[in-house]
This record gives sequence, C-alpha cells and structure tokens, in this order.
Amino acid sequence: MINVGVVGGTGYTGVALLRLLVKHPHVNLKMVTSRSESGVHVADMFPGLRGHTKICFSEPYVDHLSKCDLVFFATPNGTAMQMVPELLDAGVRVIDLAADFRLEDPQKWLQWYGIEHACPDLLAEAVYGLPEINRDKIAEAQLIANPGCYPTAVSLGFLPLIDADIVSRKSLIADCKSGTSGAGREAKLTSLFAEVSDNFKAYAVPGHRHLPEILQTLSSRNADQEQAIDLTFVPHLLPTLRGIHATLYAELKLATPDLQKLFEQRYADEPFVDVLPAGSHPETRSVRGSNFCRIAVHQPGNGDIVVILSVIDNLEKGAAGQAVQNMNIMFGLNETDGLDQVSLIP
Amino acid sequence: MINVGVVGGTGYTGVALLRLLVKHPHVNLKMVTSRSESGVHVADMFPGLRGHTKICFSEPYVDHLSKCDLVFFATPNGTAMQMVPELLDAGVRVIDLAADFRLEDPQKWLQWYGIEHACPDLLAEAVYGLPEINRDKIAEAQLIANPGCYPTAVSLGFLPLIDADIVSRKSLIADCKSGTSGAGREAKLTSLFAEVSDNFKAYAVPGHRHLPEILQTLSSRNADQEQAIDLTFVPHLLPTLRGIHATLYAELKLATPDLQKLFEQRYADEPFVDVLPAGSHPETRSVRGSNFCRIAVHQPGNGDIVVILSVIDNLEKGAAGQAVQNMNIMFGLNETDGLDQVSLIP
Amino acid sequence: MINVGVVGGTGYTGVALLRLLVKHPHVNLKMVTSRSESGVHVADMFPGLRGHTKICFSEPYVDHLSKCDLVFFATPNGTAMQMVPELLDAGVRVIDLAADFRLEDPQKWLQWYGIEHACPDLLAEAVYGLPEINRDKIAEAQLIANPGCYPTAVSLGFLPLIDADIVSRKSLIADCKSGTSGAGREAKLTSLFAEVSDNFKAYAVPGHRHLPEILQTLSSRNADQEQAIDLTFVPHLLPTLRGIHATLYAELKLATPDLQKLFEQRYADEPFVDVLPAGSHPETRSVRGSNFCRIAVHQPGNGDIVVILSVIDNLEKGAAGQAVQNMNIMFGLNETDGLDQVSLIP
Amino acid sequence: MINVGVVGGTGYTGVALLRLLVKHPHVNLKMVTSRSESGVHVADMFPGLRGHTKICFSEPYVDHLSKCDLVFFATPNGTAMQMVPELLDAGVRVIDLAADFRLEDPQKWLQWYGIEHACPDLLAEAVYGLPEINRDKIAEAQLIANPGCYPTAVSLGFLPLIDADIVSRKSLIADCKSGTSGAGREAKLTSLFAEVSDNFKAYAVPGHRHLPEILQTLSSRNADQEQAIDLTFVPHLLPTLRGIHATLYAELKLATPDLQKLFEQRYADEPFVDVLPAGSHPETRSVRGSNFCRIAVHQPGNGDIVVILSVIDNLEKGAAGQAVQNMNIMFGLNETDGLDQVSLIP
Repeated sequence: MINVGVVGGTGYTGVALLRLLVKHPHVNLKMVTSRSESGVHVADMFPGLRGHTKICFSEPYVDHLSKCDLVFFATPNGTAMQMVPELLDAGVRVIDLAADFRLEDPQKWLQWYGIEHACPDLLAEAVYGLPEINRDKIAEAQLIANPGCYPTAVSLGFLPLIDADIVSRKSLIADCKSGTSGAGREAKLTSLFAEVSDNFKAYAVPGHRHLPEILQTLSSRNADQEQAIDLTFVPHLLPTLRGIHATLYAELKLATPDLQKLFEQRYADEPFVDVLPAGSHPETRSVRGSNFCRIAVHQPGNGDIVVILSVIDNLEKGAAGQAVQNMNIMFGLNETDGLDQVSLIP
Repeated sequence: MINVGVVGGTGYTGVALLRLLVKHPHVNLKMVTSRSESGVHVADMFPGLRGHTKICFSEPYVDHLSKCDLVFFATPNGTAMQMVPELLDAGVRVIDLAADFRLEDPQKWLQWYGIEHACPDLLAEAVYGLPEINRDKIAEAQLIANPGCYPTAVSLGFLPLIDADIVSRKSLIADCKSGTSGAGREAKLTSLFAEVSDNFKAYAVPGHRHLPEILQTLSSRNADQEQAIDLTFVPHLLPTLRGIHATLYAELKLATPDLQKLFEQRYADEPFVDVLPAGSHPETRSVRGSNFCRIAVHQPGNGDIVVILSVIDNLEKGAAGQAVQNMNIMFGLNETDGLDQVSLIP
Repeated sequence: MINVGVVGGTGYTGVALLRLLVKHPHVNLKMVTSRSESGVHVADMFPGLRGHTKICFSEPYVDHLSKCDLVFFATPNGTAMQMVPELLDAGVRVIDLAADFRLEDPQKWLQWYGIEHACPDLLAEAVYGLPEINRDKIAEAQLIANPGCYPTAVSLGFLPLIDADIVSRKSLIADCKSGTSGAGREAKLTSLFAEVSDNFKAYAVPGHRHLPEILQTLSSRNADQEQAIDLTFVPHLLPTLRGIHATLYAELKLATPDLQKLFEQRYADEPFVDVLPAGSHPETRSVRGSNFCRIAVHQPGNGDIVVILSVIDNLEKGAAGQAVQNMNIMFGLNETDGLDQVSLIP
Repeated sequence: MINVGVVGGTGYTGVALLRLLVKHPHVNLKMVTSRSESGVHVADMFPGLRGHTKICFSEPYVDHLSKCDLVFFATPNGTAMQMVPELLDAGVRVIDLAADFRLEDPQKWLQWYGIEHACPDLLAEAVYGLPEINRDKIAEAQLIANPGCYPTAVSLGFLPLIDADIVSRKSLIADCKSGTSGAGREAKLTSLFAEVSDNFKAYAVPGHRHLPEILQTLSSRNADQEQAIDLTFVPHLLPTLRGIHATLYAELKLATPDLQKLFEQRYADEPFVDVLPAGSHPETRSVRGSNFCRIAVHQPGNGDIVVILSVIDNLEKGAAGQAVQNMNIMFGLNETDGLDQVSLIP
C-alpha cells in the first residue's frame, strides 16, 4: 500500500481526487490537509463521501506529510512551490495538480502567473505528467507537474498530427469549451449558477495561462522543425458541471494521408485515449467521471483543414484521474488501477 | 460467477444497469437483448461503455435467456409478464425493474396500467424487492418486483414513523421531485431539453401509478391498525438528469419522541440507508451515481408536523442499483458487491 | 412622467427592475445608485441593457434622491430603513423591495433579521404591497413594503381558501421551490453553478424569514377566527434561473365546494392572477419574465386535501414586477402599464 | 394595421413569432394555422400566451390566408414552397422562416435538403432577408427568405472583414454553438433533456445545411475577387434553451488595420447590430429574447489571426425577430417597432 497525503482537499480537484483515492486498491489515504477546515470530517463537507471514509482534514505540517510515500497538491497556484522542496528533501514523491511546475521557464511562470517562482531550480527536474509522451520519465520522477485540463485535451488531439509532421505548425486553432468546475470551488460572481446557466461565452481571448503550456508541449515535438508552433487558443465557459471539448483545426501540408489510421496507431497502446470510429462526434458526457480522452478525426469536404474533436472530463483526465494515472506509473502499478470507472450516463 | 442476461438494455434504466454489471466482480454478462438494436455493439449506442464491454445486443429469445442464472428486465411496463412464466419454468431467477409484478392485486394493475395482467397467479409469488423490509424473502425469491423510484424514496422515509406507530396514518403527504431520466429514454415532446430546462412543474396530481404501490407498502406495516393509510402524493419534474427528492410530511400523534434516534436505530444495519446528522438537508447530488438513500428528519418549531427529507438516485437505489442489491442478496453475495461507487461531485 | 430613482441597481432584483423601468411609458428614470459602481455605465455592467439606456450609476445621496417622485430600494435587508425616513420627510414616495418594512412587529424583525429596526414607528404606516388584498391602501400609501417572493406565491394560493373559511387554519403546508436568482447576485459558495446545477435540496427547514411574513398575511384574513394559522413552510433550491413553484396543501373542513369556481371568482378582476382550467399543472416558465401568478386547484381522489399549485417569476410578481404594479397603483396609472411582457418560451 | 397570418405556429420559431406579433403595435393577427391543432386555443398550447391572445389555430386554407397582407411561414422545410406561389398570385406578401427560398440554386437545394424544389422559378425573385446587406431589396420584396440562425451570426461577424477585403477568403473558420431550441419542437431522442443537459458535442462536421447558405452570402460580397470563399463550419449543441455563439477565425492578409473601428463604422447605423467595446466577450444571455446581434473583435497577440465573437438569440435575430424586422422594412414601419424587448437577465 502506498501511503498518500493530499494537500488541499476542499476544491473540486481535491474532492475528485479523494473520490478516486478512497477506492484505490493500493492506496492508504493517510492525511488530507486544509488549513481552514482542520478537524472537520471530510465527509461532513462532502456528504457524498459518507460511508467511504472517516478521515478528517488536518493541518498541512510538512513533518506529518513527510511520512507519506506520495503527496498530491490540489492547491491554488503558488502553494505547492512553497512546500515541495522540503518534501523532496525528505524523500517524498510529489504530484502537483496546480501549475507550479508546468512551465520550464521561470520567466514565463512569472509572466503568466504573476508570482516569482520559489524554487526555479526544480523546474528542470519536474516531469510533465502527460503519460502519452512522458511515460518513462514519469516512472522515475520524484516530482510530477500534472498537466492542465485544456492542455491535456488539446495536446492529445494535436500530437499525432505534429508528430507525423503533416500539418502546418503555424495556423493551429484550438477552440475549447470547459464546464464550470474548471473555475474552481471558489465564491466568485462569474461562477454563480445565475450567471452561467442558460448562457455561453468566450473568455480570456487575449491570452490564457494554458497557452504557454500547450505551446511548450507541442513545440517539444519534432523540435528540429524550423517552423515555430503558432496557436490561437480561445476558451469558452460551458453551462455544464464537468467536461472539456476541444475543437481543433490544422492545415494539412501533405497530400491527405489516412488520418483515421494515423490516430488509431498513435494511441493503439494507450489505455486512456480512445480514438472513435470515423465520422464520430464524441460528447463530453461519454467521459464524465472517467479518465478517458475520446477523440474523433474529420476532414470536411476532403479539404485541407483537419478537424479534431477531443473530449475529456476536466476533473479526471484533466486533473485527478491523470494524477492517479501518474501515481500508478510512478509506483509500478497497473496503469488503470483505481481508474476503471464507467462514465455516468445519463 | 453468475451468468446474467438483461432484457431491454437501451433505456436509461438499462444502461445504468449495464454500467454496474460490467464491473461487478461476480457477474458474467452473457447477453443484452434488444429487438430493435440486435447485432449492434452496446458500446456503439453508449460510447461511455467503450473499453468496458464488447457485448452486442441480441434478440430476446427465451431459450437463449434460459441459459442464464438470472435475467433482469429493464423493459417497458407489460413486457416482462409475457416472458417471465417461461423463464421461471426453466429455473431462471428474474428481477423485473418495471412495474409488472409490483402490485399484489391484478385489478389494481389493470386500473393503473390499463392492461390485463398476463400471469396474475405469479403476483403472489413475486417478492417486492425493498431489502429494508423484505431481505429474507428476497434471498429465497425466484421472482423479484424491483420497486419504483418514488416508492423507494417515500417508503424509506416514512417507514420508521409508520413502524413505530407515532404518526397519524391519515394525513401523510409526499411532495416528490424527480429528475428527467425518470421519464425514460423515449422521444417525447414533454421530455425535450427545451421543455424541461429552466422550468419546473407538478404533474399527475389527480393520480400517479406509484401511489397504489406506496399505499400497498405502507399499509402492510402495522397492518392491524384500524386506521387506513391515506397519502397525498404530488410528483414534480426537476430539470436534472438524475435524483429524487421526497419531502414528506406526517402529523405526530404521540408526544415528541427522539426522532433522530428512531431513524438512526431503524437503519443502523442498513448498508445503503444513511441517516444524516440532525439539522441536515440532503442534496440529490450526494447520491448521484450511488446506491445510497440519504435521509434527514426535521420537526420545525418543535410542532406536530414531522418533515422527512429523503433522496435517492432514481436510476440507482430507485432502479438499477437496487436491482443489483437484490441480486447480491438472492445469490448470497456481499450486499454491497459492485455497489461501492462514490457519488460524482460536482 | 414620474421621476424615478433606484437605490441599489446591481443585484438581480435591481436589474429586473431596470429592465421594466427603461421601457415604462410613464417613467423617467432619473438615477440609479450604487456606492461601489458609481460612475460606471449601467449597460457596461449589464450588456443586455445596451441600446436601452445610457444612465450611469451614481452615489446614493439623499438630497439627489429627494428630487424624485418615487424611489425604489433594491438593496440588501437593513439598508432602506436607514434612508427612508429622510426621503419620506422630503415628500418622496418609497417602494422597498427588501424586507425592512414587511413585518409589522419590530420584535419579529429583530428576531428573524437580527438587526434592531431603525425606524419602528414607520412600520405601522407602511402598506404591504400585495395589490390583491391592499389595492386601496396602496393607492394612498407613501411607503410600500413590497412582498417577498415566497410570500407572494403562497399567499395568493391560500387566500381564496382562507377567505372563504373552508379549510382548517391549523395544518397548512407550503412546499416551495425557488430558482437560484432568489439567492441574490452575491459571491456565495452555495450559489455556484457547480453546486446548484443537476442538484436539488431543501434548505432552512427549521425556519425561514418568509415564514413570519406569510403567517402575518394569512392571519390577517378572517382574523376573528379563533383558530390561529399554523403553517409548515419548506423551501427548496431549484436549478433554474427564475421561478417559484408553491405546492400548497390544506385540509377541507366543509363538504367539498366548487373549488375551481371559488378561485376563478376570487381573482376574476385581478389583472395578474390567472386561474388555470381545472386539471392544469402550471409551469414556472409560463410566467418567466412576466408579472403573472398562475394557479391551479386540485382535490386528488376527491378527498379532504386540497392541493394548490401556484407559480410566479420570483423577480417579477415576486419582486420587480410587483413593485412596478404598486407604482402604477400609487400614481393612478393603468395597473398593467409597462407590465405586458409575454413570458419567454422556450 | 397589417393583417397577418402565421402558417405553422406550433414550433419554437412559431411561438417566438407569436410572442412578438401579439404585442406589435401595427399588427392585426388574423390567423394562426396548424393542421394538427385546428380549433385549439393557441394559449392552451402555450399557457404563457394566456392573457395576451384568444386566437385559435385554424386550418391552413389558402383562400383564408389570401385575405392577409402578409403571411409568415414557420413550417418545416419544404412546406412553404407548396403554398407560396398561390399566395403570391393572390397579392399576399410572404416571409418564409424555413429554408425553402434561401438557396438561389435549386440544385443546391436538392443536394442539401433532399427534395426537388416545387417552384424553382421563384428563387430568383426571393430576397434573402438579412437587412444589413439587403435592406432596399427587402423593402420592395414580395417574398422574403428569412436567413438561418447560424448564417445570420456568422455572416454578420465576417461581413466587415470580407467587405473590406483584408482577410484571406480561403481559410475562414466558423466554430459555432447553438442552444437546443434550434433543433425544433419535435420529439427526437437526441433533443431530450437527459441527452443534452450537462453535455456538449459537435455535430454534422462532415457537412451542415447552413454551410451553402453562408458560402452564398459571403461569396456575393466583393464577388469580383478571384479567390473563392472557403469556410470550415463546425456546429455544436449547447445545453441552453436559446442562443448562438459564433467564434470566427480569419487570417489577415494586410497589415493590421484598426479592426475595432472597422466594425463600429460598418454597423454604425444598424439598429440591431451592437459592436461591443474592444476587449469584450459577448455572452448569449445578453441577447436572450432580444433581436440584437452583439459582436466583439479580437486579435490575440497582435498576430495574423482575427477572432470575431458574434452572439444572437437563434429564435429572435436568428428567426422570428429578424422576420419581424423584415416585415417592418417591407411595410415602411419603424424598423424597431415591436422589437424593443430588453434581454431577460438573469
């Protein structure tokens, strides 16, 4: 059994993680910390956990956390980097679900997140936890930067095309839509039911924090290409609880290959990437509560534009599920352990 | 392993059942029948099942079904009663998720469902599958009438009061609200998103089919009481996918007892009935995708009126989950096998 | 033209009021105040108002407001009572959409709202603005206490029964469901989309502020009756933007009269109370964005229990619409002026 | 007063049209036809219309309709073309809200709609009812083809760029999202609440009927350009009642002009196109129930890609509202008559 601690279990990512951990066959959930809720039963805050755990929130003391084999951070951006160095020194492995270790360049972190990085030296050491490109490194890593939700859906959609070098790297477009849990369990006016329901809008069109993360990932593929990756990324807010739908556009630069086969082969051995049959339109509910990414490939009118449809559950493959997948890889478990939930339909 | 067949796997109850069965540790899902979809992969119809099963829909031939140990009927009302006699003769055990065997009196069935009963002799043999009152009979039963969704939520809420004989049997009120999956996966105008969303209404106030079922269950408790059960039942349609919330009102006829303790004791040994702490307000999402019924007891202003709040997921404890619970009891398994899903929040 | 000021135009009640006032044929909207947004274009905050008004929020100075003929307060509870005395002294008429002047007894106000009343002497003078019982007094009033949303739906539903004295005053039950705009435009965790959507729950079962208001209204009818009004009031939170559905239960004490006719006659001359044909089930969307209250009367199984279904839009007949109706009466206008919006369907 | 008939008043477009017509100051609503509902009060079917009209559905007899000055068709595709020739012969003016007269080329109609056109000779005569490009022709027209919902949102977004000839005509992308009322008031499985709610998906990526309509409109602008219009159009289904959000991408071929000013000038005199301030993100609810199209222009990172955000209410500017706007132009009324509804927020 892996002794696991969770720092910050009161947000949506946190409770999604707890839902997985309390049922994981190889996890001993030792502690869940929250400064504000210390002493409170986790199941009092989230009654859906009643009957599944009796654990209480505790203070996030590093010396307590050091007794864990693995600590997940499900904290706001900028929190993990304050505690991670000490934990690593104590030999604890860490998976950060926030953005603290996602960008390799500390200047970019400062630019997009507005805080000086507390341990820039660790950025090189951190492994970007997208198993579909970094499985081997993840297995060895002590520190995992768990990918963002949009970057997961977008990267998995573009990867086969970029890796095969058959589309222009210049005119990529990612039109993305996310459910509201992506905005976090935080009392914000813009996240109110009365603001979000029966409504739809784009946001952050001038620039969103997930843009540099996506660029970093895609740029690292076929990195010897002269042409730099250029991506227009437009996120939108969906009136749904969960789910990301990325609609991706790329321009073919080679005569039309068998795109369907390309995707199927690229992901043939991936336990959590499901390439749908040609002509499909994946829906977000098909991954609700599950760790799958489902992808469909289209080439409308047999023209130059490839349209990729990629859906994930932002709290699963886009956060907690992927974090558990990374844990499984790090600890030599079966990669699907504790992750075989069937999506909830309807 | 129990060899299991499912007749009618294309509705919401059906797919909810499949979601449980494909993961059940003691179930071998042998066949899923559908006349209209015969030959189609189940996972083509419900892409959320991709990666979990490769089974195809097949024709509902009785001789094929006879090779199962257990057959679930997730069919429209009036279908199971056509096939059940043959299956029972063949030694197959049956759980009917429809209403065919719920009412003991065939006249009542005719009156409320508008069809002459095809095998009225089996009504006496059928066991009403509410484990909280019939566990022992269920274990021995060959034919289970799986309770309706409203009757489950309402009966579990009233039972402790009726059993303790502390409320008037005359002025019971059940103000119930159900998510739209309760209306079935059927192309009906009244079930359209554009009719249901951002809307709320009562329906069937003059009389609903679940009324005689509730009356039958409650009347059977303390049946020697002179006073007949009198219940006003008003169902409403919620703009949610799943979930039933029953708000129950009863008039105390004895000086106030410790209602909280009464409920806690009544359900102390029940694996799927969770009495919340005093003062709680259960929410439907706390049972979304799980087999729990969560209940809270209130006595506003310390007056004569007891208010019980009872929530279930209409497709789980209100249908498929309870059916699997009944299967577990029938086959001597651990009652919670395959039913330990944590509700999906948010 | 009536010169109108609005204090507190940034909440949902406020913007609902502005939507009506900018189109009212006899209103000159002179000022809309907001301390926090002073100087901001109202239409910058609510882009739906672009093209309809160029007014900016201003500071709530009493001497400015004193130049209005009428001032609406769409402020949090406890704000209006600080400013109203001065405005009345200046000869301004006032409609308070908050609760400050709804309860006649200042002790009850303290008990339920937790603040000492700032001008208890005005409570006797204030007229409760429910036109269906107080039309004449409203016409003469200088200060109107605009009713709460639940009290409007509940009172209009019970009134015909209480006035006709045909039901027991003791066992009234009001099972009410409200859309989330009723919780206000305030950054609260419990109002988040991710908390409310696909979810349903009761709240405040032990006691809700609208209970004393309803009791006060109903108790004033046939007040010579010995029997005191006794009401169990259970509010629930609906995952809808707008709308209140009150399901009301009362016990007949006289042999069954023609209930349908009773209701139709009671409201025959009311422009905004619509008694639906026998057997109807009003839906909240049928009044979305309109000032109607639609009511249906049922007597299930011809028994002793009367079930009344009463729907309003909580922001219209339950707040802003009723406030404009009161204004129309106060200023001798046609009662429906500016209130003829057809509900938005779908 | 204009004597108006409506053929097909039972769908969502129909009831949206009735909502506008019963309040229009210059309209005398003479008849609303429906074969299936003949004799039924319109307000019995749509209780939200109670108190606003007493009209009943009648049979769609051409000789009755011929007594109208104007007939709206709110019928399924392929119905209007059967009746329009006779009505035109009788001197009646016609606005068809379906697709029958939108495509100039009868072969394209056959290809996309699967029916031989019944009166191809009228296609040249029909005027495409987008006032922002055809106002003068609309004024004179006897037959109006009211634009589709997607084409309205997309065309209004691209027009300023195409007219100014500053973007490549080759790589246009329209990523569009529509509320479910766009799918019509028809009992279809895919439109059920339980299928649509808390879900999101693309559809018809290989080809959608609105594509040729958009191409026809855009191609007609600067038609002397060598480069043909090439557009990738991906529609998605939103879990909302109303609203279209078009996210449009185009590649600048000239050094960056002042895009904001370009849009503001293009629509300076348009009563129903609202260009938002730079940096805005229009939301669909800002036009809910109103005839506005609200547009924002972005140029992320000051790069080559222009992003246009364009929102309409699919039932208003995308259908009924635009139809009334066309009527106003045809009959020399003020273009905003009967169309000054403020959007309903929240």
